[in-house]
Amino acid sequence: MIFVCNCNKMFYGERKYLVGGVSMNILVINCGSSSLKYQLIDMDNENVLAKGLAERIGIENPRIKHKASGKDEVIIEKPMPDHKVALELVINALVDKEHGCIESMNEINAVGHRVVHGGEKFTESVLITDEVMKGLNDCVDLAPLHNPPNIMGIEACKEIMPNVPMVAVFDTAFHQTMPADSYLYALPYELYEKYGVRRYGFHGTSHKYVSQRTAEILNKDIKDLKIITCHLGNGASIAAIKDGKCLDTSMGFTPLEGLVMGTRVGDMDPAIIPFIMEKEKLNPNEMSNLLNKESGVLGISGVSSDFRDVEDEMAKGNERAKLALYMFNNRVIKYIGAYAAMMNGVDAIVFTAGLGENSAEAREEICKYLTYLGVEIDHELNKVRGKERIISTENSKVKVLIVPTNEELMIARDTKALI
Amino acid sequence: MIFVCNCNKMFYGERKYLVGGVSMNILVINCGSSSLKYQLIDMDNENVLAKGLAERIGIENPRIKHKASGKDEVIIEKPMPDHKVALELVINALVDKEHGCIESMNEINAVGHRVVHGGEKFTESVLITDEVMKGLNDCVDLAPLHNPPNIMGIEACKEIMPNVPMVAVFDTAFHQTMPADSYLYALPYELYEKYGVRRYGFHGTSHKYVSQRTAEILNKDIKDLKIITCHLGNGASIAAIKDGKCLDTSMGFTPLEGLVMGTRVGDMDPAIIPFIMEKEKLNPNEMSNLLNKESGVLGISGVSSDFRDVEDEMAKGNERAKLALYMFNNRVIKYIGAYAAMMNGVDAIVFTAGLGENSAEAREEICKYLTYLGVEIDHELNKVRGKERIISTENSKVKVLIVPTNEELMIARDTKALI
Repeated sequence: MIFVCNCNKMFYGERKYLVGGVSMNILVINCGSSSLKYQLIDMDNENVLAKGLAERIGIENPRIKHKASGKDEVIIEKPMPDHKVALELVINALVDKEHGCIESMNEINAVGHRVVHGGEKFTESVLITDEVMKGLNDCVDLAPLHNPPNIMGIEACKEIMPNVPMVAVFDTAFHQTMPADSYLYALPYELYEKYGVRRYGFHGTSHKYVSQRTAEILNKDIKDLKIITCHLGNGASIAAIKDGKCLDTSMGFTPLEGLVMGTRVGDMDPAIIPFIMEKEKLNPNEMSNLLNKESGVLGISGVSSDFRDVEDEMAKGNERAKLALYMFNNRVIKYIGAYAAMMNGVDAIVFTAGLGENSAEAREEICKYLTYLGVEIDHELNKVRGKERIISTENSKVKVLIVPTNEELMIARDTKALI
Repeated sequence: MIFVCNCNKMFYGERKYLVGGVSMNILVINCGSSSLKYQLIDMDNENVLAKGLAERIGIENPRIKHKASGKDEVIIEKPMPDHKVALELVINALVDKEHGCIESMNEINAVGHRVVHGGEKFTESVLITDEVMKGLNDCVDLAPLHNPPNIMGIEACKEIMPNVPMVAVFDTAFHQTMPADSYLYALPYELYEKYGVRRYGFHGTSHKYVSQRTAEILNKDIKDLKIITCHLGNGASIAAIKDGKCLDTSMGFTPLEGLVMGTRVGDMDPAIIPFIMEKEKLNPNEMSNLLNKESGVLGISGVSSDFRDVEDEMAKGNERAKLALYMFNNRVIKYIGAYAAMMNGVDAIVFTAGLGENSAEAREEICKYLTYLGVEIDHELNKVRGKERIISTENSKVKVLIVPTNEELMIARDTKALI
């Protein structure tokens, strides 16, 4: 990629702009309510210079795990009342003589922020302006748990690095190409008009990255491909991608819908909600908690939300652990089948994220049901964890791949493209 | 089929049993909260002797539409305070010299009752005993709107025809072969144990009938077939049937889940429910009403819940009517794809019920997306309403059929087999 210098901006800001051989470093930030995940990426070679996680912000025993490339990981334990303090400590770590990777904050040329919800307003990544900030605040209603910490992170950066350009990259943006018959629910249409009740989809940055990478690996134009991307982690979603555009995805108005997840129920009969609320005397908040935090693989297995724990329990003969994993796989198989039908065929199926990249068993089990599509797995190639590779046979009509996701890189690339 | 006389029962009852050439007539009854639908079927040749509908029972302006085979339809307008009075009027119509088809009530040899919910207790049709009545009452909690009128109908029959054997045929029974990974939701497992929260599925009698008929038409053993049955009416559901057994179906704990229906929402992000309840200040009952009665094709189109009205509006250029039908088809396509994946292939796709039997457009539109499975429709053969036939080409890898459903006949057959 070639960096195109925007000369207008060059004269109006005070920041250090890039010329010739000076490298461009982008700080990627992902803020949760009590966490701040970061990576500093050198965009000349897309190498990660340092990464880390500040956790327990605003609560007791806060800490930062920080690691610069080629150096040891360090744990920093200091008071962190808010995201601004956390970010200052992160920057101190980045410029630290011993544990850091840059000389001064001036070497951070831009910041890319992960923002969960962009509603219908943000159909792609955007340079953050005052108007964008207003737009982000308008979307809080749609993601009351996720957008406020994202906004806090942006505001902390603005205070600390007022002259560094920032970009917002949305989890929902890639899915904004869905047609109305994919994104609408069969609810009274007025609810869509009044409150924006529709399918938005999440993990968009991941689905975009792995689908683009798939086209590169297969050496095909993405516009000629029908791809099903399976982002299978503790949160999990699937997308149908045709001509490089999202046609449908399993997460919906919120990240609750779709697959069986670590603790989320995924698809269910909506009529169950009032039934259980009445039987268990739950208020809407408690019900929401049950569906988001006590269900999924944890709810069925009774063991854990972590797939590795559940796989271990299954190996020991725990029937409910086995059932939970069967249900997880079954739901993935159904979505792959559904999306193959929506696209009238599929050229490539891609596995990514924690379970998708690492569980050869899950991939094997899922693909066993897909021979009717012409899927043929190479069992030896499939025996791998976290490696980018094609795992289908030469003759497989549908290519099957593992593509480790890299949302941070995708955010950095979008940021670079926009500043 | 050969009728096997149960001699023990013969001595204990007073009813007229069949011998030799005496025909066997079965009355099939389907009671709603204010309706009673009936057919009298001669089981020697499976001919319908008479059929009709008593409606507005217990409310103002009640009436019975009654029609005996080969005679004109008559409308009977008389007070009908309850199902018992309605049934008495139905029997009067059946034995009426002018409009009837039998000489006396004694010619009704058995009654088959449609019962909506059999829970996990009833995995097949059963002869109604006191113990069965207890079981039906135990299932009321699972189907508070549907089972009570079914029970009322049985009790009315018992009073009027105390010695006639009766059979209960359940909408849920055929689906009881589903494996746990199909029937469970990823909710805390305890909710299944405590309250029976699971997928039950409905329209079972229809799915059973059309799948068996499909095997007969294709001249195959049903045990060698993977069939997807699409019951597409105002209420709509799809089932995956392998080896003659239901593997999965789209309706769930209640008939709300799955496809887009006339007024029902079908699949949706469960998190939308508390969101809308809060925004619109709805109580659980009002919310349930919105999802069951104001959504679906009606909610999206804003026109009607009747597919014919919506098709007419679409023809006039109404965009929301078009959207509603696209969404309906899209959901059907997704389920067919999902079930093809669960069964790792499909041999036959079958359309039945109002829209499935009559809308050549819907069948055409749905099958357009299924060429990846090897589906090839014969466009001329498809141009038909309500006729049993194969509509795929000779070379189509997957056979596509129209099989008009006949739940009444299926109920009568089960009744005959059990008495």
